[in-house]
Amino acid sequence: MPDTTAHPRNDAEHRDATDPLASLRTRFVIPDETLVYLDGNSLGRLSKASLDRVQDVVAGEWGDRLIRSWNERWQTLPQTVGDFLGEHFLGAAPGQVVVSDSTSVNLYKLASAALDARPDRDVIVSDANNFPTDRYVLEGLAASRGLELKLVEFDELLGPTAEQLRAVLDERTALVSLSQVDYRSAALADLAAVNQVVHEAGALVLWDLCHSAGSVPIELDASGTDFAVGCTYKYLNGGPGSPAFLYVNASLIDAVRQPIWGWYGQRDQFAMGQGYDPVPSATRFLVGTPQVVGVSLVDAGAQVLAEVGIKPLRDKGVALTEYAIELFDAWLAPLGFSLGSPRDSAVRGSHVSVRHPEAYRICRALIEEHNVIPDFRTPDRVRLGMAPATTRFVDVWDAFDAMRRIVETKAYEQIDPTRADVT
Amino acid sequence: MPDTTAHPRNDAEHRDATDPLASLRTRFVIPDETLVYLDGNSLGRLSKASLDRVQDVVAGEWGDRLIRSWNERWQTLPQTVGDFLGEHFLGAAPGQVVVSDSTSVNLYKLASAALDARPDRDVIVSDANNFPTDRYVLEGLAASRGLELKLVEFDELLGPTAEQLRAVLDERTALVSLSQVDYRSAALADLAAVNQVVHEAGALVLWDLCHSAGSVPIELDASGTDFAVGCTYKYLNGGPGSPAFLYVNASLIDAVRQPIWGWYGQRDQFAMGQGYDPVPSATRFLVGTPQVVGVSLVDAGAQVLAEVGIKPLRDKGVALTEYAIELFDAWLAPLGFSLGSPRDSAVRGSHVSVRHPEAYRICRALIEEHNVIPDFRTPDRVRLGMAPATTRFVDVWDAFDAMRRIVETKAYEQIDPTRADVT
Repeated sequence: MPDTTAHPRNDAEHRDATDPLASLRTRFVIPDETLVYLDGNSLGRLSKASLDRVQDVVAGEWGDRLIRSWNERWQTLPQTVGDFLGEHFLGAAPGQVVVSDSTSVNLYKLASAALDARPDRDVIVSDANNFPTDRYVLEGLAASRGLELKLVEFDELLGPTAEQLRAVLDERTALVSLSQVDYRSAALADLAAVNQVVHEAGALVLWDLCHSAGSVPIELDASGTDFAVGCTYKYLNGGPGSPAFLYVNASLIDAVRQPIWGWYGQRDQFAMGQGYDPVPSATRFLVGTPQVVGVSLVDAGAQVLAEVGIKPLRDKGVALTEYAIELFDAWLAPLGFSLGSPRDSAVRGSHVSVRHPEAYRICRALIEEHNVIPDFRTPDRVRLGMAPATTRFVDVWDAFDAMRRIVETKAYEQIDPTRADVT
Repeated sequence: MPDTTAHPRNDAEHRDATDPLASLRTRFVIPDETLVYLDGNSLGRLSKASLDRVQDVVAGEWGDRLIRSWNERWQTLPQTVGDFLGEHFLGAAPGQVVVSDSTSVNLYKLASAALDARPDRDVIVSDANNFPTDRYVLEGLAASRGLELKLVEFDELLGPTAEQLRAVLDERTALVSLSQVDYRSAALADLAAVNQVVHEAGALVLWDLCHSAGSVPIELDASGTDFAVGCTYKYLNGGPGSPAFLYVNASLIDAVRQPIWGWYGQRDQFAMGQGYDPVPSATRFLVGTPQVVGVSLVDAGAQVLAEVGIKPLRDKGVALTEYAIELFDAWLAPLGFSLGSPRDSAVRGSHVSVRHPEAYRICRALIEEHNVIPDFRTPDRVRLGMAPATTRFVDVWDAFDAMRRIVETKAYEQIDPTRADVT
């Protein structure tokens, strides 16, 4: 039996009491204080400001002002909220980020634009274990254009490294598309180092920031990133299926075109003229009518975090994940778990995966018996997301204590092993 | 001076008093009863049910249930709301409609799928005056594939006719993409007749239903339609930038693939496996994570209309547009206006355009001096949308009376003719 006396719950309580971000949690709607929610990296919590904002947008801007709101507020929302994300979370100067569509659609648009910009090259490089939608989108583009999609096996705990990529890239490489934070292990890639290797090979780079935006400081401009996409419903608290963002480096905007020529990318849009003539700005990456309610919720959620700033959020994320690994070592390692995340916080995002052959049933037991919500990730990972804005140290303690007890007592054996969807 | 005594306002009041749908207006949020809102075909009004629903979805499903709502409610929203629209508004049996993305993105997906299904043909046919985003999307697809986009000039008051198309289509035609209701004139195309001509030429057809869905009975299955898209923020009252719908005829679903291979179209999605393998249903036309708040608002708005049914809504729309034309003939024709819409309600959607060289300044005067909201459509159209659910006969009377007075007194001369965006 692991020794639990060395890690009493009041130690976690003390960490919460001295946490400089503790009060941030009060800005969120938390109907059940006993719920241990460790899935904010899949769906972030609702802020009170978002609840107010959706009422303002729906009842006021839509219900009362009706079509007038397009001129009064909505027409430039994708750009103003994009610039806001760029300034506070992405290290991007104004004019390079817009909020629109889904991550998958944005990835398609930007990957397609990048491939058009490298017409003499015929290889796309990605991570064999990249998030599925990234792989599928790239696979579809490769198939339609007769290109090769080269999927590289990276070490799950290291993620994509400049060194390993250097051996793979060559004059055939058009595009390298990777995730900054691995959705399984939280391995955090080095943007600048990878970008440099990609550019030395004459290729373009497209980053997926879904698991980093809002939890890890990102410097898109300073790192020389070409393209990036990311979702807003995880650490940015934009709500279920909220619109995604995309970034195009200012040096590329005028030179590239995306494939879906919609009217929101058109110069002099309401002239409704003949011939597509895209705006000479990031607006050319918009397509259809902006999702007003969705973009407004992204704005509201992100503003709460921006008041604090990404640096303190990152510090809290590091403290939470370090505490999780401390408890892992003390309690779970002796019970047959292995750590599925990097030990060094400098190369780790804001979640921790622990691996166990019975991970699926452990997840179900956590949910059904302990009011703890983790995420199961096939085949053997219990993924625990520490959203810096709302996760407490006692949440980490309670979750690890529950896992310890579930495995010690083999309580998971009571759970039907037939897998249902766990999102 | 036109004779106004023959058309007193109390005649309009009488029509409202005897309107069987009059009470439907009470189901909507109407903060300003003096506002004459004739732009419900650009942005439909907010229903009270939608206001309740957004609170339930945001505070309840997101704020309280968090990630659990994916399994409890959200995972199949695009399909269930799609089937609902199919049953009540589109004449489509279950399994052929999903709600996702924007109209432009859906048009891109389906046009691309159709072109892939006709690889030996190299011409896309559309309307030279089709809504801009449709033309741009098709132009982009033609450019990327080296195809010809043939834009046909149809009579604005007739819209695309089977006869005129028969002369244009041939063995080179891969795809015909048209709007059912012309966004300028409201000319209503004959789906079945056009579909037959397209199919006789061996081509596929893709309809844009933006200006018909929710106001005109549509029979996608019975008319033999191959593909359709449409927006939900006009007559369906889904809210600003709400997600669009797409329809693929059951006979084609398994045979075609769309170009954006996202994880929501993947079979056994959470296996997160290698290789895109699309679901053998309309689900394969989904891409990224569904816009939950947006799709829920589509559902709420459409349900209010579905309680009444499309047939009574259409009858009301016809009565409103006929009344508008009656007032046009009496008051506006003598003042130099021309009618920009068909006179026969059988071939007219639910809006009426009146044309005048000073249309832009007349629109501004209506908005600024008369609390009437029309839509300006370049270069000389005042477009008046009669949303059957919320437009009153007195709204029509007030708008036409205001236009009459603005032109009689030349009040529009006080308005700056410099055009700003009018959406």
